[in-house]
Amino acid sequence: MNRQQLIDSIRRKRSFLCVGLDPDTAKMPAHLDGNLLEFNKQIIDATAEYAIAYKPNLAFYEVLGTRGYEMFEQTVAYINDNYPDLLVIADAKRGDIGNTSRMYARSFFEQLGVDAVTVAPYMGEDSVTPFIGFDGKWVIVLGLTSNQGSHDFQMLRTAEGGRYLFEEVMTKASSWGNEGNMMFVVGATQGRMFEDVRRILPRHFLLVPGVGAQGGSLEEVARYGMTDECGLIVNSSRGIIHASNGRDFATVAAAKAREMQQQMATLLAAKGII
Amino acid sequence: MNRQQLIDSIRRKRSFLCVGLDPDTAKMPAHLDGNLLEFNKQIIDATAEYAIAYKPNLAFYEVLGTRGYEMFEQTVAYINDNYPDLLVIADAKRGDIGNTSRMYARSFFEQLGVDAVTVAPYMGEDSVTPFIGFDGKWVIVLGLTSNQGSHDFQMLRTAEGGRYLFEEVMTKASSWGNEGNMMFVVGATQGRMFEDVRRILPRHFLLVPGVGAQGGSLEEVARYGMTDECGLIVNSSRGIIHASNGRDFATVAAAKAREMQQQMATLLAAKGII
Repeated sequence: MNRQQLIDSIRRKRSFLCVGLDPDTAKMPAHLDGNLLEFNKQIIDATAEYAIAYKPNLAFYEVLGTRGYEMFEQTVAYINDNYPDLLVIADAKRGDIGNTSRMYARSFFEQLGVDAVTVAPYMGEDSVTPFIGFDGKWVIVLGLTSNQGSHDFQMLRTAEGGRYLFEEVMTKASSWGNEGNMMFVVGATQGRMFEDVRRILPRHFLLVPGVGAQGGSLEEVARYGMTDECGLIVNSSRGIIHASNGRDFATVAAAKAREMQQQMATLLAAKGII
Repeated sequence: MNRQQLIDSIRRKRSFLCVGLDPDTAKMPAHLDGNLLEFNKQIIDATAEYAIAYKPNLAFYEVLGTRGYEMFEQTVAYINDNYPDLLVIADAKRGDIGNTSRMYARSFFEQLGVDAVTVAPYMGEDSVTPFIGFDGKWVIVLGLTSNQGSHDFQMLRTAEGGRYLFEEVMTKASSWGNEGNMMFVVGATQGRMFEDVRRILPRHFLLVPGVGAQGGSLEEVARYGMTDECGLIVNSSRGIIHASNGRDFATVAAAKAREMQQQMATLLAAKGII
């Protein structure tokens, strides 16, 4: 999915919602008996009209071993087959030497057929650039994450005019790609820091986790981070998929997703995007 | 495997060699028809007497999808079943918010049964500490990597007295664990920088990739990085496993591993460790 298709999708669906497919088997309805694939299918069918993207996090599948990995593959295939206009983001936070990053890029884009992969920047240019150059695919670089640990290194002051490390990462990494093949992760918990991010990245799309369970505010993210093309993909995982652990889980998930979509439509309208 | 067992293993085998199990199907002998598991088994059987550790990199398995992931699991199980005194390092470079890192830790240590996992530090404390506290298991934090991109951020000067970012990472991360549950990655290509590393981490084990194909020198690594308990695990991947792509691949791999083991024995003896 290219940049224009993504913007069109946001306008058409009046939403910039990404649903995080991070199913915790301990929180899944008992009657599904740990079947992640069936859980995901029902969540996807129930929420697809409110979302523009899905983001499965690999950890939640790998913990189940080969069977989990297979269900990850099948989940991606299910979305691609049934909802081809939805962006599929593999939240993998990969990053390795060039030779190995190339393997990961092939794995995710060619083998699995996802549209985007999250990548950690610590290893620098040759760990990120192998994910660039696949038509309609995206690399999403960790910038300023949503967790407490983001203060440990990302907000370390550098000798470069006292800027934060995450600002150096965004400045340098954005020169390796462009607004049509690179996004950045910025946590919803970072509030006004979105202003600093937008000074460096005025037009890039930002993938924003941390709304809901982690405490971030959708209104704040939109106030400080939204551009005139939206420029945001806001993720919610636990707040949608585990809102109910009963037989009504998919219906409740749909209601939660719809609620977020409606808040998003209001924010998009206020900005004149729809 | 705890710290004392690791040191004993190094003394007993007169080696600090880790064989990187990163099989590239394009470089494998044709008669194996892309069967990574069979390739790995023959490599392991041929090299086990010269090595103290194996390090499969997940990327090389994930690129083959579910079947690849299964062969990764089977490779780990094969080593654990047949060579229980060998350390198995999953080179995964994971790192996510606390909630998710806990899933990865369970996945690698409990589900797969590996002894150690490489982790990227960019997301800070709650991305690393979930890997600590498993008996006899290790977290291996990326410090100063072997690739060109290591200069982009790891060698950025921080406002903290002008130290490099990797020095800040080592200082802070080492306070989250101890010498019995944490190691750091330092690339063999970094030469004299090992002196700076040892000022911060005088006793930690370092996992050292980059000897061979990437151009690092074993002698330099030992000169600047070896402690009186060795403190080094030096990895070689392509230089051993893909030294021949003929039917003799395992024999040639054994000869290459033996050559490295003998150089290592000389270095260990010179330091008075054996």
